[in-house]
Amino acid sequence: MKQPKRATIYDIAKKLNLNPSSVSRALNHSRNISTATRELILKTAEELNYKANSMASNLRKGHNRTIGVVVPRINQNFFANVIAGIEEITYQQGYNLIICQSNELAAREIKCINTLVNQDVSCIIISVSADFESDDHLKNIKEQGISLIQFDRVADELDTFKVTNDNESASREAVEHLIAEGYKRIALLEGPQNLNIFRQRKAGYLKALRKNGMPVIPELIVENAWTKDLGAIATRKLLGLPNPPDAIFASTSDFAALGVLEVANEMNISVPRDLGICGYSNESFTEITTPMITTIDQHSTLMGKTIAQLYFQELDSVTNGRKDKVVNIQPELIIRKSTLKSKI
Amino acid sequence: MKQPKRATIYDIAKKLNLNPSSVSRALNHSRNISTATRELILKTAEELNYKANSMASNLRKGHNRTIGVVVPRINQNFFANVIAGIEEITYQQGYNLIICQSNELAAREIKCINTLVNQDVSCIIISVSADFESDDHLKNIKEQGISLIQFDRVADELDTFKVTNDNESASREAVEHLIAEGYKRIALLEGPQNLNIFRQRKAGYLKALRKNGMPVIPELIVENAWTKDLGAIATRKLLGLPNPPDAIFASTSDFAALGVLEVANEMNISVPRDLGICGYSNESFTEITTPMITTIDQHSTLMGKTIAQLYFQELDSVTNGRKDKVVNIQPELIIRKSTLKSKI
Repeated sequence: MKQPKRATIYDIAKKLNLNPSSVSRALNHSRNISTATRELILKTAEELNYKANSMASNLRKGHNRTIGVVVPRINQNFFANVIAGIEEITYQQGYNLIICQSNELAAREIKCINTLVNQDVSCIIISVSADFESDDHLKNIKEQGISLIQFDRVADELDTFKVTNDNESASREAVEHLIAEGYKRIALLEGPQNLNIFRQRKAGYLKALRKNGMPVIPELIVENAWTKDLGAIATRKLLGLPNPPDAIFASTSDFAALGVLEVANEMNISVPRDLGICGYSNESFTEITTPMITTIDQHSTLMGKTIAQLYFQELDSVTNGRKDKVVNIQPELIIRKSTLKSKI
Repeated sequence: MKQPKRATIYDIAKKLNLNPSSVSRALNHSRNISTATRELILKTAEELNYKANSMASNLRKGHNRTIGVVVPRINQNFFANVIAGIEEITYQQGYNLIICQSNELAAREIKCINTLVNQDVSCIIISVSADFESDDHLKNIKEQGISLIQFDRVADELDTFKVTNDNESASREAVEHLIAEGYKRIALLEGPQNLNIFRQRKAGYLKALRKNGMPVIPELIVENAWTKDLGAIATRKLLGLPNPPDAIFASTSDFAALGVLEVANEMNISVPRDLGICGYSNESFTEITTPMITTIDQHSTLMGKTIAQLYFQELDSVTNGRKDKVVNIQPELIIRKSTLKSKI
């Protein structure tokens, strides 16, 4: 037996000779529609046995005009700037933003999400924590009829809006820059490989070496070196090797790169002459160090704006049937003195 | 006519031969009480015509165990660290934290507060924005029966829990250190004087000068110099004076102190020999600059923990009648190379 066709916003609009967007606004409890029209629409929706799909359900829930953001840590420039970008757009649209931090722990991330779901937010924007393993808690958001937008560290297999960086090409460009500057033994500080961004950055490093006919030397690749302290520990290990590296690419973060620089300074190793250092994220302190640190700018504010714009496009898409979409933003290599061996 | 005595938690407890804290828990919808006991308590409360006072009302509202924090900006170490301190305690207690930033604008601060009030949070923790003028929106929080704790930048006249720094004595200590190092003409970068913290820091500067018999020179005091760019502009102005300062105390922030240092470097002025520089807040970048910057640590994580502890003490105080309280935390002068003229 064929299932009866489900009534849509279009059916309601047709019956009432209204614009579908008016129907959408009524279901959204928007103020831009008269009370009489809204009541007529809601009554007709009931008569036609209209069932909101998850998006329409979200529109209903979204009447409090609050968006929740979950990030690992608020005190990293990258996340703070993404949030600033999101806010710039959401405030224009009359939405408020509430922020939770997971402290890089999935268990806290789940609590943050539960809190935001209980607060009946319209949308949750998330970058997952370092110990990410399962996307079950993210699926739960969608099942609750709340919009979900992932950014930067995303659960690849989950079909949602995503705003990401092209980590692989940025990483490849950074390593090719080091090669062009004359560095021969380039070490990699890599992040937790359960996170897609760090897998991509490692892939970029490997591609750059292979493309330039340089060997991949396993002892020059250090796992999970992504804080300043872990970056410093990794550097002591690397510089203690019989055949140490002449450059270190801290693909994890500028914090790790700062750890590298501090150890180099302690050991009186000249940067960039005897050691090239490249970080990742363009934290503002990379312009203050001596020498300034070469890094990769992720266009974080633009990422934030793009995320918010996607959400408001998604709201509109109820009437135009737009599909899920991934936006990949190209990061930018910022070359500073810490890698300019050829200039000295 | 005398008003009839209002029934209290104690009356309910006495009638049922229960502990007042059990009554409080029942009104708080806590899980640590049996359903039967809770229902008995709620029924008795109704019989006795018990009216919740604002605190008890707050306890009722607080069943979602969510606390809201409003700060000017999340990407300043001071605020991020206070939030980390708050979270450490709230998570232990099974509470969740949601964060909003005002971007230093009272208009946004009001929106943040409205959002949090609508989300039915148990408590709002706030440090006010730079254009603070009126505490009406804060009074509104208390009128809604939501706990209010102010920290750092507080509305002095509002009777709430407050966790503050002793800004005046920290500032005085910093200026006395500069005097002891041999600086003779000490400039002050001051913050917006509508904020109590900046008034207190200015007062400390003036006291140190007077105590040491040094004149207050109006042209050495620059208003509203509290970002890196404004700090740089102020410095160019000060160093262009016919009789320029030999030290600059950026009482506003380390960001302003960084602006001072960058201009000094541009102008080839030797720090600390020809110019002493002291900042405020112990942002982590002050350890990376050359030279490292003397600053004041506000014990921000401790402030955060203290705030959260006050809230949970306040909950308990329903049964012990504790009064509002102000906790003043002593900041610490962190002496680094940028002011150590006597050591070179």
